[in-house]
Amino acid sequence: MIKASKRALSIEYAIRDVVLPARELEKKGIKVIRLNIGDPVKFDFQPPEHMKEAYCKAIKDGHNYYGDSEGLLELREAIVEREKKKNGVDITPEDVRVTAAVTEALQLLFGALLDPGDEVLIPGPSYPPYTGLVKFLGGVPVEYRTVEEDGWQPDIDDLRRKITERTKAIAVINPNNPTGALYEKKTLKEILNVAGEYDIPVISDEIYDLMTYEGKHVSPGSLTKDVPVIVMNGLSKVYFATGWRLGYLYYVDPENKLAEIREAVDKLARIRICPNTPAQFAAIAGLTGSMDYLEEYMKKLKERRDYIYKRLNEIPGISTTKPQGAFYIFPKIEDGPWKDDKEFVLDVLHNAHVLFVHGSGFGEYGRGHFRAVFLPPVEILEEAMDRFEKFMRERLSS
Amino acid sequence: MIKASKRALSIEYAIRDVVLPARELEKKGIKVIRLNIGDPVKFDFQPPEHMKEAYCKAIKDGHNYYGDSEGLLELREAIVEREKKKNGVDITPEDVRVTAAVTEALQLLFGALLDPGDEVLIPGPSYPPYTGLVKFLGGVPVEYRTVEEDGWQPDIDDLRRKITERTKAIAVINPNNPTGALYEKKTLKEILNVAGEYDIPVISDEIYDLMTYEGKHVSPGSLTKDVPVIVMNGLSKVYFATGWRLGYLYYVDPENKLAEIREAVDKLARIRICPNTPAQFAAIAGLTGSMDYLEEYMKKLKERRDYIYKRLNEIPGISTTKPQGAFYIFPKIEDGPWKDDKEFVLDVLHNAHVLFVHGSGFGEYGRGHFRAVFLPPVEILEEAMDRFEKFMRERLSS
Repeated sequence: MIKASKRALSIEYAIRDVVLPARELEKKGIKVIRLNIGDPVKFDFQPPEHMKEAYCKAIKDGHNYYGDSEGLLELREAIVEREKKKNGVDITPEDVRVTAAVTEALQLLFGALLDPGDEVLIPGPSYPPYTGLVKFLGGVPVEYRTVEEDGWQPDIDDLRRKITERTKAIAVINPNNPTGALYEKKTLKEILNVAGEYDIPVISDEIYDLMTYEGKHVSPGSLTKDVPVIVMNGLSKVYFATGWRLGYLYYVDPENKLAEIREAVDKLARIRICPNTPAQFAAIAGLTGSMDYLEEYMKKLKERRDYIYKRLNEIPGISTTKPQGAFYIFPKIEDGPWKDDKEFVLDVLHNAHVLFVHGSGFGEYGRGHFRAVFLPPVEILEEAMDRFEKFMRERLSS
Repeated sequence: MIKASKRALSIEYAIRDVVLPARELEKKGIKVIRLNIGDPVKFDFQPPEHMKEAYCKAIKDGHNYYGDSEGLLELREAIVEREKKKNGVDITPEDVRVTAAVTEALQLLFGALLDPGDEVLIPGPSYPPYTGLVKFLGGVPVEYRTVEEDGWQPDIDDLRRKITERTKAIAVINPNNPTGALYEKKTLKEILNVAGEYDIPVISDEIYDLMTYEGKHVSPGSLTKDVPVIVMNGLSKVYFATGWRLGYLYYVDPENKLAEIREAVDKLARIRICPNTPAQFAAIAGLTGSMDYLEEYMKKLKERRDYIYKRLNEIPGISTTKPQGAFYIFPKIEDGPWKDDKEFVLDVLHNAHVLFVHGSGFGEYGRGHFRAVFLPPVEILEEAMDRFEKFMRERLSS
């Protein structure tokens, strides 16, 4: 037997790890309602037509070559315009790098930042690739608390307490996956203040930025005076193009503290040659084209959020905060016979045939919770909630 | 200034690094003939129409969701058929993983194999991402000699001498980038024997497998009895779809020694979610469709190879072996005033306005050489060779 690396074996990815037992059930012909993966395109959402058309046109027009490793200039210009309009940031195409979705942006950035033993502060509960990628590089993901009672807002005192000499970045995921929290401007300013005090850059994952139900997303990139902020975004959520794997990062760095990091990101980006070229033309169309589709899509999502929120809070043993953005809800298991949330999720899967993700898959602060997506139409959510409610009533009465 | 990681700063990628001075010239309005990047789609090659059509159809039909992290089953089935036909290997879709080109296959595999200090044997001269990716992971790329006088065939004694307790894999790139060598069956058997003796897997990069001018490509996957072979391939070269960034790896592992490595690769693959979904439909069309286009394309490439080979050998101070596969030629700088091959390449760039890549960018065994691609039409190659010949005659007479 040839041994695998310690780094790879250290990684878990709960969201996909629960897929295997679900597949086993499905092989037996059981219909599982999957509320585990954040993919709107698996339901009644699609990228807008003008993006699809631009993608095909690029293929047919022959744009199938290697592009520049930093991304096509025309796309980086479109990103600058989009981000100026959305966040009022003062950036140029030279500040922008195109990536294979936010995941690759994180790979490049963490690769550029982290030597073994270095720490990254990430919100807890946290989106698993953050933990996984940091661990893979021999780094230490350190979760700062976000407070359920406070709508999952970051606990700034906890964040500050956890800064050490090895802290290389503070990550913010806003709107948040898995909690659906939308961070307040005041909170973001406090995070920037702490970061500035210790000379640490802020990483801002804004992939759900225009997906909010109450309130508007604010970027720390729009608030910073001196603290370097690296913003990440892409096509997967707001543009409903998950399977196209296209994203970007950009630097808001008023005092040019990131020169070495930029150079390191570029070195890593050159090795992988370039992002998908025709997909970049689709991105240009998406970023510069009409956003009219979003209104209809958000209306649907809001209806589904309202529905699942209401239903979940009526189920005995379950309580939940109301997500303000993204398409996740992160309820608490208040009562029941399970030894932990993973046992709970597997029990729900095997008996109610509804697939959630266990909260502990999102780190320590996720324990005793689970994540559900509310992407399916209300009639499917209704079926899922009916099954789940019946299951809970049975479990709590036995 | 925020410091970058040592791992990222350790990386160089010569092929793209020479692009920056070329761009400077182009900004001044100078027309540089770029013979640096191995991208046929920048010239008169395109992916076949049926692949383009399948790609667009997938987009229009709504296949824009996240696929399975291991790749779409239908594509993995097509890969099995393609590889059975080409190499006679006995594999199933469970042995196949779809990746964002060979680069990501290497990222996943090296990530699964290497802890800091582990070594990988790579052919020297060598394609830079091998060196870069291994170094990035804290590993040590160890080059085994390939012998110019012997058509750049591997030196098996040198390979054997360089095996240590930390050697985790032997990489073979065949047909070779940058030398264009096609490895003999006998040589591959010898490599497998050495690997078997020390219980080390073989990594076989076969991205140029059907691009040969004399002789046919043989895969070590078709020759192995017990030694695990991990084969890598993709759409970028033989299917002329460089910008689509789609590739795959598969395990030929008769004694199931790679179980832990497979699990580790899958963990890493889950973090990045999945490869581009509609591009996978294009790949299915490519792998199962007609290969008629290849005959015409290879005829063009052979004409260009013959032309550049003849011209280069007529230029004073330059000698070269004849590439048997791929679309690179790797001549030797026999004579001239330059202190090293990088100075030579920059001198050619600034004075003849032809862009090569310096051989030392491909490691120690590349010193004193340069790499040129012979992808452009003969009339462009002619202009490049005329300029280069004039330049050499001037330099050698002064």
